[in-house]
Amino acid sequence: MALKNAFYAQSGGVTAVINASACGVIETVRANRDRIGKVFAGRDGIIGALTEDLIDTDKESAATIAQLRHTPGGAFGSCRYKLKSLESHRREYQRLIEVFAAHGIGYFFYNGGGDSADTCLKVSQLAEAMDYPIQAIHIPKTVDNDLPLTDCCPGFGSVAKYVAVSALEASLDVRSMARTSTKVFVLEVMGRHAGWIAAAGGLVEDHGIPVVVLFPEIPFEEEQFLARVSELVARHGFCTVVVSEGCHHADGRYLAQQGPRDAFGHEQLGGAAPVVARMIRQGLGHKFHWAVADYLQRAARHIASTTDAKQAYEAGAAAVKLALKGHSAVMPTIERISDKPYRYRFGMAPLTEVANVEKHMPRHYISEDGFGITEGCKRYLRPLIRGEDYPKYKDGMPVYVTLKNVPVRKKLATFDLH
Amino acid sequence: MALKNAFYAQSGGVTAVINASACGVIETVRANRDRIGKVFAGRDGIIGALTEDLIDTDKESAATIAQLRHTPGGAFGSCRYKLKSLESHRREYQRLIEVFAAHGIGYFFYNGGGDSADTCLKVSQLAEAMDYPIQAIHIPKTVDNDLPLTDCCPGFGSVAKYVAVSALEASLDVRSMARTSTKVFVLEVMGRHAGWIAAAGGLVEDHGIPVVVLFPEIPFEEEQFLARVSELVARHGFCTVVVSEGCHHADGRYLAQQGPRDAFGHEQLGGAAPVVARMIRQGLGHKFHWAVADYLQRAARHIASTTDAKQAYEAGAAAVKLALKGHSAVMPTIERISDKPYRYRFGMAPLTEVANVEKHMPRHYISEDGFGITEGCKRYLRPLIRGEDYPKYKDGMPVYVTLKNVPVRKKLATFDLH
Repeated sequence: MALKNAFYAQSGGVTAVINASACGVIETVRANRDRIGKVFAGRDGIIGALTEDLIDTDKESAATIAQLRHTPGGAFGSCRYKLKSLESHRREYQRLIEVFAAHGIGYFFYNGGGDSADTCLKVSQLAEAMDYPIQAIHIPKTVDNDLPLTDCCPGFGSVAKYVAVSALEASLDVRSMARTSTKVFVLEVMGRHAGWIAAAGGLVEDHGIPVVVLFPEIPFEEEQFLARVSELVARHGFCTVVVSEGCHHADGRYLAQQGPRDAFGHEQLGGAAPVVARMIRQGLGHKFHWAVADYLQRAARHIASTTDAKQAYEAGAAAVKLALKGHSAVMPTIERISDKPYRYRFGMAPLTEVANVEKHMPRHYISEDGFGITEGCKRYLRPLIRGEDYPKYKDGMPVYVTLKNVPVRKKLATFDLH
Repeated sequence: MALKNAFYAQSGGVTAVINASACGVIETVRANRDRIGKVFAGRDGIIGALTEDLIDTDKESAATIAQLRHTPGGAFGSCRYKLKSLESHRREYQRLIEVFAAHGIGYFFYNGGGDSADTCLKVSQLAEAMDYPIQAIHIPKTVDNDLPLTDCCPGFGSVAKYVAVSALEASLDVRSMARTSTKVFVLEVMGRHAGWIAAAGGLVEDHGIPVVVLFPEIPFEEEQFLARVSELVARHGFCTVVVSEGCHHADGRYLAQQGPRDAFGHEQLGGAAPVVARMIRQGLGHKFHWAVADYLQRAARHIASTTDAKQAYEAGAAAVKLALKGHSAVMPTIERISDKPYRYRFGMAPLTEVANVEKHMPRHYISEDGFGITEGCKRYLRPLIRGEDYPKYKDGMPVYVTLKNVPVRKKLATFDLH
């Protein structure tokens, strides 16, 4: 009997370490060639499966695959394409099964966040209903750190490190300038619904930096916010504000939405940072600077944390091992054993309990006034940003790999995506 | 006869490596204690001299001073406080001489850009006119790289490296997402009058990234810009835009100024990036993301270039050596001997030829269409971003030093700044 092949795809926003998970999957499959066949990757995520646009990862050398471990972005392409309910999207799910059958695929590894956990679960359910044997394993990945049942999510630790390091460095800059120039620095970070990334900015407090953190979990109150900034500037001469893009008012309006509309009636394309900066100028008169890190933060492989890069690799490897043990509709999870020394092990969670659940910051990780993080939160974050997993450099630039991405010959009729 | 002391101050926007120059000054003075006395630093730049708020750097251990080499920001504080003409600001210049006389200061080391070269020159002229013997040496520092007569400016190489690395990483992210999501990434970088920093973004072309660079030196033409972006997206599926904050229309209006006004009549606090992003959406319909790096870029000591950190240190050391040789009203310059292998030596330029001169990008460093850099420009930039001069880390965070900054006892009456 021929060995079953594996399908691997990257889903949603990519991270600095999602390719480390791909590397973990591919290397672990290669180490188990007596039990699994090839790894076919989906070009541009699940779209690659729907359109039978598969990449033969066997065409890449071991050395090239090893370089994935240090390369940011999604090496096979990712996508934002959510397969919704089985009822309304049955045609797509059935197509997936057809493609898998045509290419002898018995393992489905899907590397993404909450949405893709849901897709992964539905693939496993439909395969069962259609009596097509496939094991669907979800590999956790999200800079937002909002998947449930895992202590943390691969991708988060590196963003957290980037935000903490960048906030510290910019704060030292502002501290130098505060006497005659900039007194407040505002840094906008990602996290539409959960404040984990913003929380990492709170770590600079341990380095003597007065910082205000604005979380999506805490409704924004302008008056209290300005009072806090004013107090810190009075005491320290300057302060840093780390604002989550998802920070919003009690009525749900995002801060980023309150800008004026342009001549075409579009909302101002500002983020939350310029809005907060304007409040500070209007309310307190302080000079400010603001930055929006956007993709820079989630792509910053140059400052990836060793913990994160290692866990991303291990999550990929763990997914293959779970498949080899016969599991399906599960996700490998990271279970923390202790903070200091930091110890963890891999566990497993059923996708029925992962799909569509968002893990927000617990209230006890946020300080009572809502503008900072607690010691408990710091204990949680510190091990995740530990270690500098530097890429190699050549002539001053990091050496990142671009794969050949050789397509697998198609066997089926074309499929119209919509 | 008592040895003369030295005054050292940091001026204008700080950089990731200005403290390396401070380290170079202090360590070189300490190595020449038979010829120079103490280094007194100005707290918050020249304001420290005017207000007789001097810092005794002898109170810091050798180990602490050595740590300055890897610490971003301005360790003694900087300021934006320009001493203008001798005529209108004679009172300030005379006060400087009084403070220097009161503390036995015979060397004036001023670490800054074009404005501070001018101040440094005036101090030397007034000292001569007042028959107070002082040697004034300017130490080059500016992320803008716009000082004349030196091949490059300490501070620039590290920003250039940050911009090149960040643009590459974010571009790999966009490339992954382009099929169903973001097709254009816009990164705004510093450089109000000169496009050197933006030029560094052009280096990603060598890594297979389609990139458009917008320089202050080239008047912005929306139609041609959109045509170029459209062409690159059609060919590659995505593109990256690196826009200088100083990019402007032919009539001088900055791109950043063209946003709508808010309810208070203030100009939109957006940078150039959101404006460019909006153009792309309105003109081409592409999904985009934008980032404004702001202070993150000039504070990013974690990704400082070895060439830059080394030259910053050497510029400080060279300034002391020039003083010991009897020079005044000069600035140490970096003279490039060859590109590959990169070789340079320190020279010297008279401040009369440095003060108030801005070095823009030469036209032959910008591609003919105005949207990229030439091979000559790349040859210029590559050695400047070479090497990774990493700081030490502890528990995932860089180890940056904060000095004690012990004040020197005051001897004069207080001075009213204005």
